[in-house]
Amino acid sequence: MLAEIITIGDEILIGQIIDTNSAYISKELNRIGVKVYQITSVQDDQHHILQAFEDAKKHADLVIVTGGLGPTKDDITKQTFCDFFNDTLIEDQSVIENVKQLFKKHQLNKPLPANFQQAMVPSKATILMNLYGTAPGMWMERDDVVFVSLPGVPYEMKHLLQDEVLPRIIMRFNRPHIYHKTLLTYGLGESAIAERIADWENGLPENIKLAYLPSLGKVRLRLSSSSNDESVLMESIDSRMEVLSEILSDIAIGYEDETSIIDRIAHILNQKKQTLSLAESCTGGAIVQQITAEAGASSFFIGSIIPYKTELKTKILGVPASLIEEFSVVSIQVAESMAINCCKLFSTDYAIATTGIAGPTKGDGVDEVGTVCIAIASPTGVVSEKFNFGNDRYRVIEKTINKVFEMFLKEISKN
Amino acid sequence: MLAEIITIGDEILIGQIIDTNSAYISKELNRIGVKVYQITSVQDDQHHILQAFEDAKKHADLVIVTGGLGPTKDDITKQTFCDFFNDTLIEDQSVIENVKQLFKKHQLNKPLPANFQQAMVPSKATILMNLYGTAPGMWMERDDVVFVSLPGVPYEMKHLLQDEVLPRIIMRFNRPHIYHKTLLTYGLGESAIAERIADWENGLPENIKLAYLPSLGKVRLRLSSSSNDESVLMESIDSRMEVLSEILSDIAIGYEDETSIIDRIAHILNQKKQTLSLAESCTGGAIVQQITAEAGASSFFIGSIIPYKTELKTKILGVPASLIEEFSVVSIQVAESMAINCCKLFSTDYAIATTGIAGPTKGDGVDEVGTVCIAIASPTGVVSEKFNFGNDRYRVIEKTINKVFEMFLKEISKN
Repeated sequence: MLAEIITIGDEILIGQIIDTNSAYISKELNRIGVKVYQITSVQDDQHHILQAFEDAKKHADLVIVTGGLGPTKDDITKQTFCDFFNDTLIEDQSVIENVKQLFKKHQLNKPLPANFQQAMVPSKATILMNLYGTAPGMWMERDDVVFVSLPGVPYEMKHLLQDEVLPRIIMRFNRPHIYHKTLLTYGLGESAIAERIADWENGLPENIKLAYLPSLGKVRLRLSSSSNDESVLMESIDSRMEVLSEILSDIAIGYEDETSIIDRIAHILNQKKQTLSLAESCTGGAIVQQITAEAGASSFFIGSIIPYKTELKTKILGVPASLIEEFSVVSIQVAESMAINCCKLFSTDYAIATTGIAGPTKGDGVDEVGTVCIAIASPTGVVSEKFNFGNDRYRVIEKTINKVFEMFLKEISKN
Repeated sequence: MLAEIITIGDEILIGQIIDTNSAYISKELNRIGVKVYQITSVQDDQHHILQAFEDAKKHADLVIVTGGLGPTKDDITKQTFCDFFNDTLIEDQSVIENVKQLFKKHQLNKPLPANFQQAMVPSKATILMNLYGTAPGMWMERDDVVFVSLPGVPYEMKHLLQDEVLPRIIMRFNRPHIYHKTLLTYGLGESAIAERIADWENGLPENIKLAYLPSLGKVRLRLSSSSNDESVLMESIDSRMEVLSEILSDIAIGYEDETSIIDRIAHILNQKKQTLSLAESCTGGAIVQQITAEAGASSFFIGSIIPYKTELKTKILGVPASLIEEFSVVSIQVAESMAINCCKLFSTDYAIATTGIAGPTKGDGVDEVGTVCIAIASPTGVVSEKFNFGNDRYRVIEKTINKVFEMFLKEISKN
C-alpha cells in the first residue's frame, strides 16, 4: 500500500522552517510496512491544499496531512477538510473536556472562550484526542482513501501518530513487510567504496536496492526491499549485508538504527567500565552535545571543558604556556597536552582534545583556517593527528566531529 | 513567478534523512522575488520523477531538482532529464578538466576512469560547473519552463545555487519583490499573543499575511507580502511591525534574520566589553554549542565547563558538598553556587549555570524528571529560578535553552 504525506504551511515554502515531521512520519510508516510514495509541501491556501488532496488521492491509499490546525487565523486545514469531504464544523464536547483537563494539569486558571475554535471539528471525522495540545487530530475516509490530519507541532504530532494513527492503520490496511538495513562506514569516499564492492553490487537481485548516502567523512550504505514473507526478506538482506561488512571490515562500524558510532563507543566503554572526558576548543561543545543528547551518557561520560580562549588551556587545563609559544595553539603538542591533562582533571580513563581554527577568520592563532589537531589520551599513552578540513566553518566542525569519533572508536577497540 | 522544488531520493521517503536543501533553496528564491508554489519529494524511480516533472510544469516557471547525480548506480537524474527533454548523454570535456583540477587540489593522485560517468551530460544542457564536487549542475528549458538540476550534497548545492543559478534566474525572469519580517518573542503562548494583538491583526489589509510560528518557549510572528514596488512594500510591513513591537514590547526581542537572541546577547556584551562563561550540567553542552556555532563568539565567550558527574561540581567548580547534601544537586542554591564559582574560574563578568534532570530516568539525583534550576551570576549579584519542564528529554533541554537565553538577555539588558 502507498501513502502520501502533505505538509501545510507557508513557513516551509519560504524556507523559514525545515520540515522534520515528514521524515519522522515516513520512518514510522515504513516500520509498519507502508511505503511513502511522495511528500508534498503546500501553502496555507485552500485551493492549493484541495488540489494536493485530489492529486494524492490518485495514487495513495493513505494521506497524512500535518499543520494548519492552530487556534489562529492563518490555520485553515479544518475548513479545507470540510470542503473536501462536503462536511460542516460542529462543536465537540470531548475536545472541550480534554482542553479543560490540559489547562488544569498545567495550572492555567482561565476559562475557555465562548466560541472555542479548537473544539470545532468536521461532523464526519473520527476525533484523535491530543493529550499534549489543544488541536485534535482527525481521521476521515472518501472513496476508500483515508485522510488523517495531525497538528504540525512535532511533539504533539509524534504522540498522536504513535498512540492513535499507527494502531488504526495496522487494523485498517493489509501491508507487506518493508526492510532496510544500513551499514555505517567512516574514512573512505563513495567512489572508492563503489569500486571495492562492484562485484558484490552486481550480484544483487532486482528486488534489492542499494543506496549510497555520503556525508562529511562518512558513507552510509543501505539495502532495501519489501515482501509479504518477513523471514525470507530479512534473511535475504541480512546475509548480503554480512558479506558487505566483511568486504568493508576496515571501515564499517556497524548497522544504523541498531547502533550509532556513539552507541558503539558507549557500549565498549560500559563493558570495560571505562570513562571519558573532553577538552573541546575549536568544536566548541559540538562533540559533548552529541554525546549527551541521548539518555544514558552519564554511565561513561564524566565531564568536559571548553577552553575557548587560549589562556584557559594553560590556566585550567595546565597546558604549559611555553608549549603554546613554541608550537602554536593549534599543534599536535598542545592537543596531546590538553588530552593528557584533561584525563587528570576529570580523573577519566580517556580524554579527547580538539584544537583548531574553524574559521572564517584565524582568531588569535597563526594557523590556517581549517587546521585541526585531535588528540586522544588513553591508559596506555596518547595518539594524535593534524588535519586540514577546508575553509567552511560548518564543514570544519562536522568533519572534526566525525574524525574524532572514528579515531576514538579505533582507539578503544584496540585493547 | 512561481517555482517548484523537487527533491529526489528514497532516503527522504523512508525518513532516513531530513531534507534541508528545500528550506535553503526556498529562502534564497524568496530573497530574489521567486515564490515557491510547492516542494515535492519523490523516489529514485524514473517514472515517478517524470510524472513530477510534468506536474510541476503545469504551474511553475522554474523547477529546481536536487539529488540523484552521484557516481553510483542508484543515481538516475541525468538519464531522466534526457528522457524528459528527448536528449542523449554526451561526454563533456570541461567537466573532465574540472574534476582533474579538483583531484589535484585535494592531492588525489589517481587517474579518471575510462568511461567517467560524471562527465556524461545531456547534450542540450547548459553545464553549471561544480567547483566543490564531481557532479555538475544542469540548466535546461522546455516550453518556457526552466529546469535546473543540482547535486543533493548541501555544500555543493549551495555553492552552485549562489554562483550559477541565482544570477541566471535574475537575468532570465521578471520578478516582484517579496518581503517577510518576523518578530521573535519569548515567554508567552500563541493564544495569549493572539488575544493581545487581536485589534491590530483585524486591521491588517488583505494583501499582508500574518503567521504564528510557536515552538518551545518562544513564538515567532511573521508578516508577508509581495509587490512590484519595493519601497511601498517595505514601508507597509515595517510600519505595522513597529506597532506590533510596541504592543509586545515586554516579550519581543527583535526581528529574525536581522538578529537571533544570541546575536542580541553578543551585541550587548560586545558593547559593554563584558564576558560570559557557562557551567552546564543537565543541558550537557547544548547551550555552548549554540553559542559557538556562529563565528565571532570568541569576542565575548570565554569558556565552559560541563560537570556532568555530581562530584565535579565540587571538585572543579568548588560547589560546597554540604550545599549539595542539604538542598540536593538540582536546587537554586547549587545552581547559584555553580554560577558564582564559574565566574571566578573563568574570570568572566557573567556566568550561566544549569542543573537539572533531563530524563528519562532520575540519574543520581532525588528530584523529579524535568526539574531544572537556572542561575545567572553577574557583576551585581546572582539571579536564579526553578522550573519543571515535563518528562520528555528533548523538550526539557530545548525549553531550558530558550529560558536561559530569555533570562540572560533580560539580565544584561537591565543595567
